[in-house]
Amino acid sequence: MSIRIGIYGYGNLGKGVELAIGQNPDLTAVGVFTRRAPESVKTLTGLPVYFVSKMEEMQDKIDVMILCGGSATDLPKQTPYLAQYFNVVDSFDTHAKISEHLKNVHAAAVKAGKTAVISAGWDPGMFSLARLYSDAILSQGKDYTFWGKGVSQGHSDAIRRIEGVLDARQYTIPTQSAIERVRNGEDPVLSTSEKHERECYVVVADGADKARIEKEIKEMPNYFADYHTTVHFISQEELNEKHAGLPHGGSVIRSGVTGNGKNRHVIEYSLKLDSNPEFTASVLVACARAAYRLNKEGVIGGKTMLDIPPVYLSANSRETLISTLL
Amino acid sequence: MSIRIGIYGYGNLGKGVELAIGQNPDLTAVGVFTRRAPESVKTLTGLPVYFVSKMEEMQDKIDVMILCGGSATDLPKQTPYLAQYFNVVDSFDTHAKISEHLKNVHAAAVKAGKTAVISAGWDPGMFSLARLYSDAILSQGKDYTFWGKGVSQGHSDAIRRIEGVLDARQYTIPTQSAIERVRNGEDPVLSTSEKHERECYVVVADGADKARIEKEIKEMPNYFADYHTTVHFISQEELNEKHAGLPHGGSVIRSGVTGNGKNRHVIEYSLKLDSNPEFTASVLVACARAAYRLNKEGVIGGKTMLDIPPVYLSANSRETLISTLL
Repeated sequence: MSIRIGIYGYGNLGKGVELAIGQNPDLTAVGVFTRRAPESVKTLTGLPVYFVSKMEEMQDKIDVMILCGGSATDLPKQTPYLAQYFNVVDSFDTHAKISEHLKNVHAAAVKAGKTAVISAGWDPGMFSLARLYSDAILSQGKDYTFWGKGVSQGHSDAIRRIEGVLDARQYTIPTQSAIERVRNGEDPVLSTSEKHERECYVVVADGADKARIEKEIKEMPNYFADYHTTVHFISQEELNEKHAGLPHGGSVIRSGVTGNGKNRHVIEYSLKLDSNPEFTASVLVACARAAYRLNKEGVIGGKTMLDIPPVYLSANSRETLISTLL
Repeated sequence: MSIRIGIYGYGNLGKGVELAIGQNPDLTAVGVFTRRAPESVKTLTGLPVYFVSKMEEMQDKIDVMILCGGSATDLPKQTPYLAQYFNVVDSFDTHAKISEHLKNVHAAAVKAGKTAVISAGWDPGMFSLARLYSDAILSQGKDYTFWGKGVSQGHSDAIRRIEGVLDARQYTIPTQSAIERVRNGEDPVLSTSEKHERECYVVVADGADKARIEKEIKEMPNYFADYHTTVHFISQEELNEKHAGLPHGGSVIRSGVTGNGKNRHVIEYSLKLDSNPEFTASVLVACARAAYRLNKEGVIGGKTMLDIPPVYLSANSRETLISTLL
């Protein structure tokens, strides 16, 4: 029997979830829930669209609800609320508030006998797992996270707020020389700004003062001032043509020693993603499968990817996984 | 309270386990069990050495026994036998027989109320996990395993059996052009011999026919005939000096698509290890911690790393892991 999944919120992530469900024969998409007027939303695969208030009466038709809202204001309220009715999965990524969010979601889920997986995705998510496994194995070591090459929406938005800027796209790029030092086991001390560079593609209004704009970008505190930043002025056409995607990725590298410190080992987990939201969606969908199975076995409450036995994420049976992957 | 660990077998792997336990303050090594005369074995850290028959009467002093024997003849018998008395961990790596081994170990462990983790290490082990996670996320994709650069004991032994050869060391080296094709998302079809090259360092007897030896190596079926193989003749001194270590490693790469096949993603997990046995030992030790905790919670029977909730492997509490790694 197929696992029936609801999609709550329909931006880039929700669309990614819709397409990811289509790639997994053991899952079925039931519909999209939105706060917009349902008739104004057209889904990619023709899924039905419901107003969010329809949700309660569809409890019997949905095994897991995947929440596709934002971490700032949507998920802190939505995930605990929806966990009263459904097994849920979200991608809450405000690192400093994850413990608090988990507590709230856990309380709601336990009360309702539901299973709720929070903070799924790649960071938090797969990168967190990479850190956990590497740290557990190489207890004497250091780990490093490099992000990129990828689009940072926050930094792109910050550039767009500068006077004279019409549009912008900012790429975070890991500093190759820093990566090489880590790979070589030098255990360097590196700040975030030493690990990353920032590359900006900027469209400006006719007659705008490019020198001033470039200066404002490069001196913007927190966002750019501490980083090696390059600014390219391009046309809107070129931006639309060459920078429309949302690629991202990065690496988690742990370097550590064993055997009285004589032998060094480097563990590296890296991602190169054409589409940040579609990859995140694929992780959410695998976690929805796990949430459903855990709930069937009576494992309820708030969970993270660090809690999930890996076999629960796969469409294949444990027997198949053991005989083919080990 | 510290988790008390016994080491069953004292070759390279057992020594690695002894040193790895010393790196983890929550674990204590109780002693080494050997089939040799105990007084003939000197441990690296002064651990007591017991004859294997002492094992039964030490059940109350050991929480987990780590088995450090070989997969060919030791572990198929030892792991089910010892699971009658202890929680156990082994690194059984005969891929084709893992399901059968798990069945035997599971039956013994369930009967005794013990927890038994089999096939821990890096392949099987961490590489198996990398495959599972990547496949669960990118269901439309292909995965590739590259081994090396690393020493293959089996291939080194095969060279040593050739007439006129005194000593040899064989390195398996991943073919860089094949790795690049996979990283670029070309989804190539690659045989094991297209993915790897073999480099041999050979010491021969005075007056031996080097041309014949090189030919015998390169034409040896299964081991070398299908591979691009290079042979270097060196002195015993040079072999001892430059090729004494047991480095290994490799990469598991999955390349897949999402979003109607438009967007490609590459997930890569790679290891660069100075010491194959010491790294494997570090994985075994983390699994011993997990076996102990699972058993405390009543989760008994035969398990693999694919079954273990990741948090159980770490010395840190779940709360700490969630607040620091997510």
